[in-house]
Amino acid sequence: MREGFHEDLRGLAASIAEMCERAGLAMQRATQALLQADLELAEQVITELQEIAPKVAGIEDDALRLLALQAPVAGDLRAVVSSLKNVADVQRMHALALHIASMARRRHPSHALPEDVNGNFAEMGRIAVDLGKDARDVVLSCDPSKAAQLDDDDSMDDLHRHLFTMLMDQDWKHGVAAAVDVTLLGRYYERFADHAVEIGRRVIFQATGQQG
Amino acid sequence: MREGFHEDLRGLAASIAEMCERAGLAMQRATQALLQADLELAEQVITELQEIAPKVAGIEDDALRLLALQAPVAGDLRAVVSSLKNVADVQRMHALALHIASMARRRHPSHALPEDVNGNFAEMGRIAVDLGKDARDVVLSCDPSKAAQLDDDDSMDDLHRHLFTMLMDQDWKHGVAAAVDVTLLGRYYERFADHAVEIGRRVIFQATGQQG
Repeated sequence: MREGFHEDLRGLAASIAEMCERAGLAMQRATQALLQADLELAEQVITELQEIAPKVAGIEDDALRLLALQAPVAGDLRAVVSSLKNVADVQRMHALALHIASMARRRHPSHALPEDVNGNFAEMGRIAVDLGKDARDVVLSCDPSKAAQLDDDDSMDDLHRHLFTMLMDQDWKHGVAAAVDVTLLGRYYERFADHAVEIGRRVIFQATGQQG
Repeated sequence: MREGFHEDLRGLAASIAEMCERAGLAMQRATQALLQADLELAEQVITELQEIAPKVAGIEDDALRLLALQAPVAGDLRAVVSSLKNVADVQRMHALALHIASMARRRHPSHALPEDVNGNFAEMGRIAVDLGKDARDVVLSCDPSKAAQLDDDDSMDDLHRHLFTMLMDQDWKHGVAAAVDVTLLGRYYERFADHAVEIGRRVIFQATGQQG
């Protein structure tokens, strides 16, 4: 039974890891739709992201089945519960990518972003892809040192702060409506990073028993 | 064992229900700190909210103990897992109240909000208190009709939309910096409501097996 249990647990981790990577790739395409005011791409991303719910439900069912059939205790039980929490975080990461694609669609044929901040958002999109891959690696490897690297990465925060500096600058020429969109969009990228870091911290806690 | 299990499950629900109500009350005080630029109150709310983590950990430990000792299956298992998800939502509700109090502190001695939007935020704060109480009642009663009412309540969304109308209005006189703060703060209230509704939906699903 224990061998079967650990195999099932690895299967669960593999599904979650795949969802982490896909969240990053969804952010990449949502960012592209945003930067290029590409309606078709935005709609494609939105459609794909709406199909995430059954996948999430499937992973949760697998976790529940594992709990029901194997009745794990101690570390094994915590591992399954951690998986359930990781699913919730990665589901939210997908929802944030959906928000970004939706903003691109809502503003089409206009660009949601003023040109000056394009570089900033392109970079935030690039980091989101990396975070998705890092979260994938951490979930698969359960390696606390990789998880700690994920936690130490302040690049999204730095870009988010820079965005606020631009918004607060007296020279901001794009008016209030654009500032509101930029504020919300910036928040979506920041939250995406928070959830990836949260997954990393949970892996540290799971591996070492200590809060990351 | 089953009787003991259901008693423990009720205990778990009672702890979560209390946290729901407290989240609403934290929003009430955070809103007051925001509207009155009351530094002392903001700091008090922040300190109290930072003490939530051990409470959350305690409830999660109770849930894990229940899983480990009683190895529930089927509906009982889903009830415990739902509790774990509810804890995560209510924890986030507390974090959002913390964000609002932090904004009040950051802008002190200035007011974070221009006076024209005070009424809107006062009302959003009032609704947050109600949502906290409604979520409490739903968690305690497991009553799907109460949960459906919670889900049908669009008042927070309406206020949030009205806020955007004010921001997008050509007559907005308060500049970009205030608009950025108002955008973020509005988002915090909206998300607070989303999490309360999520708890309600989970109760419906738990009671009826159908997505709310």
